[in-house]
Amino acid sequence: MTPLFARMTVAGVGLIGGSLAAAARRAGLAGEVVGFGRSGANLALARARGLVDRTTDDPAVAAAGAELIVLAAPVGALAALAAQLGPHAAPGTLLTDVGSVKGTLVAALEAAWQDRGPVVGAHPLAGSEAAGAGAARADLFVGRRCILTPTKRTDPAALARVRALWEGVGARVEEMAPAAHDALLARISHLPHLLAYALVTAAAGAAVDGRAVLDYAAAGFLDTTRIAASRGELWRDILLANAPALADALAEFRAALAHLERLVAAGAAEPLLAALEAAAAARRALEGRR
Amino acid sequence: MTPLFARMTVAGVGLIGGSLAAAARRAGLAGEVVGFGRSGANLALARARGLVDRTTDDPAVAAAGAELIVLAAPVGALAALAAQLGPHAAPGTLLTDVGSVKGTLVAALEAAWQDRGPVVGAHPLAGSEAAGAGAARADLFVGRRCILTPTKRTDPAALARVRALWEGVGARVEEMAPAAHDALLARISHLPHLLAYALVTAAAGAAVDGRAVLDYAAAGFLDTTRIAASRGELWRDILLANAPALADALAEFRAALAHLERLVAAGAAEPLLAALEAAAAARRALEGRR
Repeated sequence: MTPLFARMTVAGVGLIGGSLAAAARRAGLAGEVVGFGRSGANLALARARGLVDRTTDDPAVAAAGAELIVLAAPVGALAALAAQLGPHAAPGTLLTDVGSVKGTLVAALEAAWQDRGPVVGAHPLAGSEAAGAGAARADLFVGRRCILTPTKRTDPAALARVRALWEGVGARVEEMAPAAHDALLARISHLPHLLAYALVTAAAGAAVDGRAVLDYAAAGFLDTTRIAASRGELWRDILLANAPALADALAEFRAALAHLERLVAAGAAEPLLAALEAAAAARRALEGRR
Repeated sequence: MTPLFARMTVAGVGLIGGSLAAAARRAGLAGEVVGFGRSGANLALARARGLVDRTTDDPAVAAAGAELIVLAAPVGALAALAAQLGPHAAPGTLLTDVGSVKGTLVAALEAAWQDRGPVVGAHPLAGSEAAGAGAARADLFVGRRCILTPTKRTDPAALARVRALWEGVGARVEEMAPAAHDALLARISHLPHLLAYALVTAAAGAAVDGRAVLDYAAAGFLDTTRIAASRGELWRDILLANAPALADALAEFRAALAHLERLVAAGAAEPLLAALEAAAAARRALEGRR
C-alpha cells in the first residue's frame, strides 16, 4: 500500500514530534521519516530509539524531498523554522505544526510559507511535563484529541491529508477556527499552567517559623503543581503567544476565586458547601478521562 | 506485650480514621479498636474490612472504657463530638484528633474536654480525594508526616503516647505550634484546594462557540484539579476554620500570579523564562515525594 506521505520530516524530535514520527512509522503512514533538529544528542537518541529513519541538522537536507514537514519545536521558534526550511522545500510541500497556540501562529506560518505549498495548523492534546526524544512513544496519541484549525486560506485536500495522518496514529480529530482553539486551550491548559507556576513560586518563597513550606508538600500539592515542572521555554512561548485569550480566562478564574473567597470570609457555610460540591461533582464527572 | 492503649475508639471511620484503626490493629498498638459513627453502612463496611474490632452508633458505648478517643470526622463537627462523648468517658481518657486545622480546633477541643483528660492535637498529612471506610488502608501513614501541635496545656506524657501511636503506624512525627501548622497547611494544602475548586468552577461555567470547555480536559487539567473532587463538607470546614491563614496564603499567591501576568502582558520573554524555569526547578526538586 502506498504510504500517505512518501517522505515526512519532523522538525523537533521531542515528546510530540518524536511520538508522531514513531507512530507514523509504525502505522506505515510515511515511506521515510526524517528527524531534523539542533541537538546532536537528542537526534542520536531518536535514531537509537527507532523514532525516525534518519536525522539531520541541515535544513536543506531536512526539507529536500519532503512531502510533509511537521514543525514540532517550541511555538516561538516555528515561524523562523518555516522561513529557514521554506527555500529548500519543493513546490507543493505540505507544512503543518503541533503548536499549542494557533491564531497568530498559523497566520505567521502562512506568511512564512508563502506560496511554497499548503499550510494546516494542528494541535494534538497530548503534552505533559516530560520532554525530549527519550519521552516519545508511538502510542501517545491513541484516543487523544487532535484539533485542526483551518483558515480561509487552507487547502481542503491538504486538510484531509493531515486529518488522515492524525487519525492514522489513533487521534480523535476535530476541526475548529484558530480563535476558538485558543480560547478553549487558554481555559483548559494555559491558565492551569500559569496557576501551577504561580503556586510553586509562592510556596517556594514562603517559610513559616524557619520551615520551608515546600518541605511539607504531599500528594495534593504534587498533583496540583505537576505541570509546573514543564519546560519553561515551551510555556514562555505559549503564554506570550496566547496572551489575550489567557487574560480572558484569568478574569473568569479570578471571579470564581473571589466568589469562593467571599463565602469563606463571610463564614457562609451553606453557600460555600454548595459551591464546593458543585465543583467536586463537575470534577468527578471527568474521572476516567486521561 | 501490653498494647499502647487497652481500648481505642475512633470517631469517624473514614479514610483517615479507618486507616488509623486498621494500622493500630495490625501493629498491636491497641488491645481493642472500636469504631463510632452515624452511618450504619459505613460502620458495616469497616467491620467487614476488618478495620475495627467492633462498632457502635451510641456515644455512651463508644466512650465507655476507652483509654484513647480519636476524633476523625470533618473538622467542623469535632468540638460537638467531643462534647457528646465527654460525659461518657472515664476520667483521664486521652482525646486526640486528625483535623487538618489546629489553632481554633485544638482550643475548642480543650474547652469541650475540660478536665476529662489530656488533649493532644494531631494531623497526619495523608488525605486524598478518596473517602469512607472503603478507601482506608493500614499502610496509609507509612513514611508520611504527622504533625503534633502541643499547647501550653498539653500533658507531656499524653503527647509522648500520641507520638508513639503515630510512630507505631509508620509516620514521621514532628511537633510545632498550632499557628505554625495552620500557616504551613494554608500554603501547601488549603490554598491549592481552593484554587482547584475555583479552576473547576470557572471551567465548568465556560463555553467557546457552544463547546463545553471541560470536554477538552486532558492530563494537565485533570492532575491540577484532582483535589477538587474531595468531599465538599470536609473542605468547607477546613477553609472556614483556617480562613485568616488562608487569606495570607492567597495574598502571597496573588502577588506571584500578578508578577507572572505582568511579564506576559509586557511580552517580557527573558524575565518570564527565568521565572518559569525557577518554578519548574523548584517543582522538579519535589519529584520522588508522595
